[in-house]
Amino acid sequence: MNTWGNYLRVTTFGESHGPACGAILDGLPAGWPLDNQLLQSYVARRRPGQPLTSARREEDRLEIWSGLWEGRLLGTPLTLAVRNGDTRSQDYRPLAQLFRPGHGDYPWRARYGHCDYRGGGRASARETVARVLAGGVAEQLLAALWPPQRPKLEIAAWVESVGPLALPYSEELWQEHLRHLKREQIDSYPTRCPWPEGQESLVELLNQARAQGDSWGGVVVWVARHLPAGWGEPVFGRLDGLLGGALLSIPGVKGVEMGKGFALAAQRGSQVSEGLIPGPYGPRPRHDWQGGSWGGISNGGLLWGRVAFKPTPSIAQPQESVDLEGQSQELKIEGRHDPCIALRGAVVVEAMIALVLADLALAQRGLRSTKEGLFLLN
Amino acid sequence: MNTWGNYLRVTTFGESHGPACGAILDGLPAGWPLDNQLLQSYVARRRPGQPLTSARREEDRLEIWSGLWEGRLLGTPLTLAVRNGDTRSQDYRPLAQLFRPGHGDYPWRARYGHCDYRGGGRASARETVARVLAGGVAEQLLAALWPPQRPKLEIAAWVESVGPLALPYSEELWQEHLRHLKREQIDSYPTRCPWPEGQESLVELLNQARAQGDSWGGVVVWVARHLPAGWGEPVFGRLDGLLGGALLSIPGVKGVEMGKGFALAAQRGSQVSEGLIPGPYGPRPRHDWQGGSWGGISNGGLLWGRVAFKPTPSIAQPQESVDLEGQSQELKIEGRHDPCIALRGAVVVEAMIALVLADLALAQRGLRSTKEGLFLLN
Amino acid sequence: MNTWGNYLRVTTFGESHGPACGAILDGLPAGWPLDNQLLQSYVARRRPGQPLTSARREEDRLEIWSGLWEGRLLGTPLTLAVRNGDTRSQDYRPLAQLFRPGHGDYPWRARYGHCDYRGGGRASARETVARVLAGGVAEQLLAALWPPQRPKLEIAAWVESVGPLALPYSEELWQEHLRHLKREQIDSYPTRCPWPEGQESLVELLNQARAQGDSWGGVVVWVARHLPAGWGEPVFGRLDGLLGGALLSIPGVKGVEMGKGFALAAQRGSQVSEGLIPGPYGPRPRHDWQGGSWGGISNGGLLWGRVAFKPTPSIAQPQESVDLEGQSQELKIEGRHDPCIALRGAVVVEAMIALVLADLALAQRGLRSTKEGLFLLN
Amino acid sequence: MNTWGNYLRVTTFGESHGPACGAILDGLPAGWPLDNQLLQSYVARRRPGQPLTSARREEDRLEIWSGLWEGRLLGTPLTLAVRNGDTRSQDYRPLAQLFRPGHGDYPWRARYGHCDYRGGGRASARETVARVLAGGVAEQLLAALWPPQRPKLEIAAWVESVGPLALPYSEELWQEHLRHLKREQIDSYPTRCPWPEGQESLVELLNQARAQGDSWGGVVVWVARHLPAGWGEPVFGRLDGLLGGALLSIPGVKGVEMGKGFALAAQRGSQVSEGLIPGPYGPRPRHDWQGGSWGGISNGGLLWGRVAFKPTPSIAQPQESVDLEGQSQELKIEGRHDPCIALRGAVVVEAMIALVLADLALAQRGLRSTKEGLFLLN
Repeated sequence: MNTWGNYLRVTTFGESHGPACGAILDGLPAGWPLDNQLLQSYVARRRPGQPLTSARREEDRLEIWSGLWEGRLLGTPLTLAVRNGDTRSQDYRPLAQLFRPGHGDYPWRARYGHCDYRGGGRASARETVARVLAGGVAEQLLAALWPPQRPKLEIAAWVESVGPLALPYSEELWQEHLRHLKREQIDSYPTRCPWPEGQESLVELLNQARAQGDSWGGVVVWVARHLPAGWGEPVFGRLDGLLGGALLSIPGVKGVEMGKGFALAAQRGSQVSEGLIPGPYGPRPRHDWQGGSWGGISNGGLLWGRVAFKPTPSIAQPQESVDLEGQSQELKIEGRHDPCIALRGAVVVEAMIALVLADLALAQRGLRSTKEGLFLLN
Repeated sequence: MNTWGNYLRVTTFGESHGPACGAILDGLPAGWPLDNQLLQSYVARRRPGQPLTSARREEDRLEIWSGLWEGRLLGTPLTLAVRNGDTRSQDYRPLAQLFRPGHGDYPWRARYGHCDYRGGGRASARETVARVLAGGVAEQLLAALWPPQRPKLEIAAWVESVGPLALPYSEELWQEHLRHLKREQIDSYPTRCPWPEGQESLVELLNQARAQGDSWGGVVVWVARHLPAGWGEPVFGRLDGLLGGALLSIPGVKGVEMGKGFALAAQRGSQVSEGLIPGPYGPRPRHDWQGGSWGGISNGGLLWGRVAFKPTPSIAQPQESVDLEGQSQELKIEGRHDPCIALRGAVVVEAMIALVLADLALAQRGLRSTKEGLFLLN
Repeated sequence: MNTWGNYLRVTTFGESHGPACGAILDGLPAGWPLDNQLLQSYVARRRPGQPLTSARREEDRLEIWSGLWEGRLLGTPLTLAVRNGDTRSQDYRPLAQLFRPGHGDYPWRARYGHCDYRGGGRASARETVARVLAGGVAEQLLAALWPPQRPKLEIAAWVESVGPLALPYSEELWQEHLRHLKREQIDSYPTRCPWPEGQESLVELLNQARAQGDSWGGVVVWVARHLPAGWGEPVFGRLDGLLGGALLSIPGVKGVEMGKGFALAAQRGSQVSEGLIPGPYGPRPRHDWQGGSWGGISNGGLLWGRVAFKPTPSIAQPQESVDLEGQSQELKIEGRHDPCIALRGAVVVEAMIALVLADLALAQRGLRSTKEGLFLLN
Repeated sequence: MNTWGNYLRVTTFGESHGPACGAILDGLPAGWPLDNQLLQSYVARRRPGQPLTSARREEDRLEIWSGLWEGRLLGTPLTLAVRNGDTRSQDYRPLAQLFRPGHGDYPWRARYGHCDYRGGGRASARETVARVLAGGVAEQLLAALWPPQRPKLEIAAWVESVGPLALPYSEELWQEHLRHLKREQIDSYPTRCPWPEGQESLVELLNQARAQGDSWGGVVVWVARHLPAGWGEPVFGRLDGLLGGALLSIPGVKGVEMGKGFALAAQRGSQVSEGLIPGPYGPRPRHDWQGGSWGGISNGGLLWGRVAFKPTPSIAQPQESVDLEGQSQELKIEGRHDPCIALRGAVVVEAMIALVLADLALAQRGLRSTKEGLFLLN
């Protein structure tokens, strides 16, 4: 299943060391101008070769193979791609015979038999470049669709913790600072963790892990501001399920929370009642503990949650493994890896949020229901 | 979107106080005997009217409207339903004018305009009876499909905590007891929390909450034992995303973890490397910290995770709210509610796991790939 | 595959002699009043037990199990059903052992193994009652959606020929009479063939076939008037393919034409050029030979075509057949059958046209594209 | 909707004068060797630049961007493309202002607003190269899947008529010659009409049309030999509907018949009863008049039908038209066009048949149903 979405349908393709990675987007409106520069800069944010990330150098220059003409979308499939460049496939040759624990190697072999072991093939996090391409378009579409009288939708994700080092949380800090964070602020930290006091320790922690051939897990917080109430669908289209499923489809993600998530489970109903109060754009909850959805549909409050990334399993220490013949072997991995995937993962989180919301925007558009009846807008 | 699944397609219908709730299952194999008794007893496990649950009395007697003949499936749509009985709709009359915070009332109104406020309508947890009907069939299908030479698939979910009271966790307890828990053992506790020492306190906590018109959140742990390596699909069909999306589509769920989930984010790659070792049914990880999937595909280890249920928002204390005209109002709710939805939610968790796995089973079946070529079976 | 449509999704269920036949409609707008009386009368038009049709008596009384409250749709799944009544299953007992040529008996057995042979089970034309239920809702939805400034959409289908007897066609008759036919005019003929001079011969032909235990094929012509230009989607969503696929999914249909269809293949481009001229509601073709679509999208002209129904294969004459053991046997069928399925088939044709158009209406609704940008409506 | 299929999902992209046209195939089995040479030669058969076709020269050289490694499929999306070369876009410049009747120009403008008028953009028959790429893979897959004990599946399509000149049909000629035609025999005629006596007249007719700037319609007959009984699905997955919908999605197709199609509508049930007789590979009908499906599912007989192509509307004669401002204008078209699209269309017909059958093959594979139970294969 390489297609995602019901109304904005995204089909991704490409292996880590194949010719290209990309996405076809189907269901986009015709006549709408796509800003290529903006999209290029959006994609650049997840590029490897930045400090604190994998040393693999990829230009990730956007190519458009169909769907655009004279700067505007045709309403036909928009094909976006980037070529794969700096592929040191020889690094992976030994892995043809030996499975890396924690990676897709063995399960993919069990599933598919024939596998591309070079850099994980399609199981590589390289695959997420296609999601970011699509997410960038989704974000532009949401901006274009946005009702002009409402404050603009803002999607942002940042790193809350790397391993044991976590941005100290307080309700006050959240209310006054964190929930208002802009993407520019976040990107100004190479760790993507907006924690000035902890910055040095974080960088040291990451560099140390890299030096030791080790890695750290991390937690990402995401927000989507100014979403109106009423987004989401009943039952299998609940916002929580759509967002959670999308986020858990990102490589390395092992947990998601809407709002305070697991912390809610330890509390009383009377403690977490958020209330409902009038607001300038309609009613909204007084508090935002439950992440902005009630009954699976947005409630007019801040949409937000957390995502847990496991430590990348590419570590230099010896690990127990099994070879193609099923025999025990000791494994030691070479290669260029991110010391913590949450840093670049935050960009993928933003992309998936944008895709979920753009799909819903198209799903919910356009029956004008008035006293006189229903009208088809065209 | 009221249809779920790609190969086993489940469409559910029904409002809490409408005539019936049910599901159509499409994609089931023909000629296969459905055990109605077994299905009836499966559904009974989520029935309200048990101690520690809502007092609403529902017989939930299974009706089959199509797809079965002479005790065997026809391969045509299987329509299952239960009628809605004990609907005290008058309890909900005041809610026609006033939104309950934390419930779908206001978001649904924002989304749909016209809503069935009686017991939440389709936003009610009553809707999950249809999922359990479908999950029961999925579980029987998985049993029928299971390779006879493998130990049987076992799906089980139990309550780990209610509010602040949590079954004490230790790696040893997990290894020797919890991960082997059978459904019969779990069901022998009315709390569904397999914690003999804590049972009395849990019951007291629940009864107290009910007496106070309050509620508690809770955490459910689920396991699926003996799943072979190789289940799951690349990218948008990752096991983590499919399971997580399905679980977060359950009313009240606000967090999911695969394996140790968020705890993994605080650790080093070298700490959470599970290793890969030979096993009687093929290689498997030595540890099960990551929940049984690598690269989005099952790795031959235990598949498991956690689900966080928020406290049900139906509480007797006064809450801030807003009426249909957008004016602030104080709200006080009457009605019969579960003091902790995790107790019955555990059964819905099991049903969603069964649905995800049955859909995958049908997706992955049957191309025999040999040295001589691919053969179409049947 | 028992679900049809992408935006208005219809899932049908039921076997000919099972408890009920029906449909779940998902994707309908909330708050819209459904006219049950109108729907009931719509369904009555395909009911058996009319003169010149099968003698099976079915009340086909509409039941609504979900999705409607206080007379208006909830936006949740709308479940519609009729119970199966006059099922003389014993008529079919001998067919358990012997396949009827031309019917689904043998292919279904080859496909499914286990089959419901009573009246064809789900292969029976009884299944089409669910399509007509759904088509009736689709037609009401289209009426509600229709732009008030445009003449109303009118869908009509009539019988053009029964076996060798065909309504004489002339371009003049078409232009002045046929293309304007109303459903009331069509229904005033028990043959649904609007041919006053031929009526007596048609009735005699049908009665004779019935008396002889034989049947006739027939051709149905359908029109959809006042469809604006611009309906349809590129490539796999071409109007021709959507309509043709829908019509060829009706039991007994063995041919479809858009406009003059096969006759176009015998002509020159210069002969069939329809021209494009200004019209009161935008440009439209001068002629309507190609059936109202160019490049797969409606062109503002009359949308129309033909459908060929084969003679029902339920005939009293002895036929060559094969039994369950694969041995040759002579077969003689008892039962109550339509002498020509095109008569009731015309109503199913109308229903499928309505479903295709309603699905497109929902697909194409609601992005307002203005000089200022795209706006999300609602 | 640019994705086709449920199990083998094909997403096509590309405009006539854009950078490339291609397809992503999702759902293919891993480890299976794709024969690139064979695929290249398959695609070459629809290439323009052949005698009697458009003079546009396209090399149509296959590029593979993902999904293949070391000569074998990965089970990941297979991306196939050909670049667009000989695009004389300036020929189409005048069409930016004036709609060509019979082409998609005006309807696409009504639907999408913004259009690529160069060569029809995505409405061009150039789009079908992507279908043929996909169809070629589907055909190889079907061959690989085919049960070795059965005669091989053979799909073939030929031209039966060009305008008024039709290969004379007789039941004897059909039985002894036509139904057995091989693709090599068909391709040996530049007209793809296997009619030696009429060949000269056909060529003259086509050359004359080209010289006059005119075009002819044509009829294509297709067959799929040796399909077992039992392919197809109930109701919305009937073989007739799947095939008919696929064929009517080909540009220029205005009619389809299964078997004798419309001719069946003029006959009695007793005349068209095909009988059912034992055969070497299971029961099959004695005659093949109904096209090989009963009840929507294959019956073990020859699967076949007819497809009507309208004359290409690109003619040099002046035509009535309307410009962008809605004013009447006379139109005269330049450009390089096929005098009869049925010749190359036959290859697209074969490709769509292969896609339908490959999708069904994957849908129906692999539950082994035995007395002991159902088993999941691998």
